[in-house]
Amino acid sequence: MLQFQILATDPDSHARRARLTLNHGVVETPIFMPVGTYGTVKGVMPRNLHEMGAQIILGNTFHLWLRPGLEVIRAFGGLHGFEQWPKPILTDSGGFQVWSLGAMRKISEEGVHFASPVNGDKLFMSPEVSIQIQTVLNSDIVMQLDECTPYWQGDKASGHVTTEAEARASMELSLRWARRCQAEFERLGNRNALFGIVQGGMYEHLRQESLEALAALDLPGYAIGGVSVGEPKEDMRRIMAHTPHRLPAHKPRYLMGVGTPEDLVEGVACGVDMFDCVMPTRNARNGTYFTRTGDLKIRNARYKTDPLPIDPSCTCYACAGAEGVSWEDGGRGGFSRAYLHHLDRCGEMLGPMLATIHNLHFYLHLMQEVRAALETGRFSAFRQRFASERARGV
Amino acid sequence: MLQFQILATDPDSHARRARLTLNHGVVETPIFMPVGTYGTVKGVMPRNLHEMGAQIILGNTFHLWLRPGLEVIRAFGGLHGFEQWPKPILTDSGGFQVWSLGAMRKISEEGVHFASPVNGDKLFMSPEVSIQIQTVLNSDIVMQLDECTPYWQGDKASGHVTTEAEARASMELSLRWARRCQAEFERLGNRNALFGIVQGGMYEHLRQESLEALAALDLPGYAIGGVSVGEPKEDMRRIMAHTPHRLPAHKPRYLMGVGTPEDLVEGVACGVDMFDCVMPTRNARNGTYFTRTGDLKIRNARYKTDPLPIDPSCTCYACAGAEGVSWEDGGRGGFSRAYLHHLDRCGEMLGPMLATIHNLHFYLHLMQEVRAALETGRFSAFRQRFASERARGV
Ligand SMILES: [Zn+2]
Ligand SMILES: [Zn+2]
Repeated sequence: MLQFQILATDPDSHARRARLTLNHGVVETPIFMPVGTYGTVKGVMPRNLHEMGAQIILGNTFHLWLRPGLEVIRAFGGLHGFEQWPKPILTDSGGFQVWSLGAMRKISEEGVHFASPVNGDKLFMSPEVSIQIQTVLNSDIVMQLDECTPYWQGDKASGHVTTEAEARASMELSLRWARRCQAEFERLGNRNALFGIVQGGMYEHLRQESLEALAALDLPGYAIGGVSVGEPKEDMRRIMAHTPHRLPAHKPRYLMGVGTPEDLVEGVACGVDMFDCVMPTRNARNGTYFTRTGDLKIRNARYKTDPLPIDPSCTCYACAGAEGVSWEDGGRGGFSRAYLHHLDRCGEMLGPMLATIHNLHFYLHLMQEVRAALETGRFSAFRQRFASERARGV
Repeated sequence: MLQFQILATDPDSHARRARLTLNHGVVETPIFMPVGTYGTVKGVMPRNLHEMGAQIILGNTFHLWLRPGLEVIRAFGGLHGFEQWPKPILTDSGGFQVWSLGAMRKISEEGVHFASPVNGDKLFMSPEVSIQIQTVLNSDIVMQLDECTPYWQGDKASGHVTTEAEARASMELSLRWARRCQAEFERLGNRNALFGIVQGGMYEHLRQESLEALAALDLPGYAIGGVSVGEPKEDMRRIMAHTPHRLPAHKPRYLMGVGTPEDLVEGVACGVDMFDCVMPTRNARNGTYFTRTGDLKIRNARYKTDPLPIDPSCTCYACAGAEGVSWEDGGRGGFSRAYLHHLDRCGEMLGPMLATIHNLHFYLHLMQEVRAALETGRFSAFRQRFASERARGV
């Protein structure tokens, strides 16, 4: 089941504040969804996700299919019970990962034959198989299997940018797969919500064809795929400006795999309701921390004795300790940049653990501020102030 | 400052229940102290240490001296502020690590010359230097620099077991260093508590000489060193049975680097008040989890679909979730062995994170049970039941 109620719209952009009701709970949008590939958001405990206000997380169909496998997850009644996350879950279709296998896979109309990267087993993924797996996972939002059109055909050195003909063929295949996914979803009596995925590469008219054909299927929600696949930033922003607001207005819109904090705020202005990205968790493990005034590279020697927390305005556990009072408000319970610099240098797990909490908190708190600004009609002002503060530098 | 108040003694053993008051707070003994080598107990956040009842943690003088270095820690007013742990801290002297450098160090009466394993710098550690460093760290309990007498001289293949003459020379050097540590500690006006360390290898009469000479220094507490250094288990148990109860009765006794859960309970019976060991944290990262009925190797395929938590009687976050109701008491908020097996197989950080919480909780909870048994005169019965339950197997 899926209900989508628009609570407020921004007069100066396509932004909207809405409420999404799914089988495992309510999601206030616009929202960022932390990525939990193998049934765990890397480096963070579920209780900390709850505390920082995560409302919905992702799981990866492809990875969970291979490990631990469906028999294990079935024994737990689905992914929620297995990973102890009682709130909504969205699963991708597995298409992106299968596509990423490169030479190890063979795509046909029927589906994709490939060898398991875990044990070499010969496997077959099709629209029907993807829906069958996601039905066992019992995710609240199920994604159709699509062919994720790459920006580069082949590798960047020897390949070429996807042509219009290639993008069209790929988009049309994804459309046919959308119909097969819808049929299988209904056949299985899945009571969750199936999303279609707009493709069409960097060609606006193909995107338009794709979204119109998908809208005709009357699915409960739609995603924009085929971005964050190696294209220049301006191409991503061009598609982000084109597609979301042309999708059915009364249904949720999900921009897949995007992006930086700036991308999220601009994406909301373009009419996007849902985002996911590995950036906050991956950057946490690589020593790049997000702050209100820009990104902070903790390995920089300037932080060796810095007593400030990552972001003096932040109330996360890393920045403000268990009390949650920010440095700016006089709290002194957080961990210093000097300490985090030291943990990173010593390869101590606590470094990525604290940084993951902070970076996810930053993304989730940013979306919370976006929602509050939309509710009170201050989104344009917020958008401007956010951009100028972030550009200031740490 | 150090106050030590004995609250109850066991009529059938040397065990005692006591209260240790230090500059940063009160420690109820017998106690296990989690090890935080580089200013972090590996894989666990301070708030989780508080929750599981950790009262005092360790820091390593040698490691913290090299990274982040004293200037950084001095800027934070000591180790408590740097690592955000407001409760008591004990620091070792650095002797064990310097000794472990093998061919890279040269020991003389004056101290130890060695090359930094971090950057090759030539460094010098002496009783005075160790106390100076620990004074900057501002640890509540400061350990004297000792020469940790090894069990094997040279490596196990080509060396020999430490002779009586070698053990005597080493023990006597440690005694002379104890006096120098005491003098430097007083000269610096350090207001924490200095512990002496009994050495003497596997020779009871040398241990006796060592503890009598140290007792004459009237230090506020004493440790038994030179165990857990590669000796057979029966030798460790022999020294554990000999030395602790011969130390001054009205002062705390600390058995360094020991050991298994069984060692801890038997150590208490021998009169030990304080323990430290890397085993719970290291085993957590290596997939060995402690339970009431024995040790559990999570990599074993039998756990692939096991819905039980690590220990069904445990109330830690890993076994019982945020509610803290054990599986046995009907709680279903914990993480299954199947999930932990999966996390381990995928190399996911959450595996060691949850296991570290569980293993430390197991050790701390065990000591809590020991204290309760001593308070109510049931220690002998507890000791027997604990041993038989642990021998049962998971
Ligand atoms: Zn923060
Ligand atoms: Zn537990």
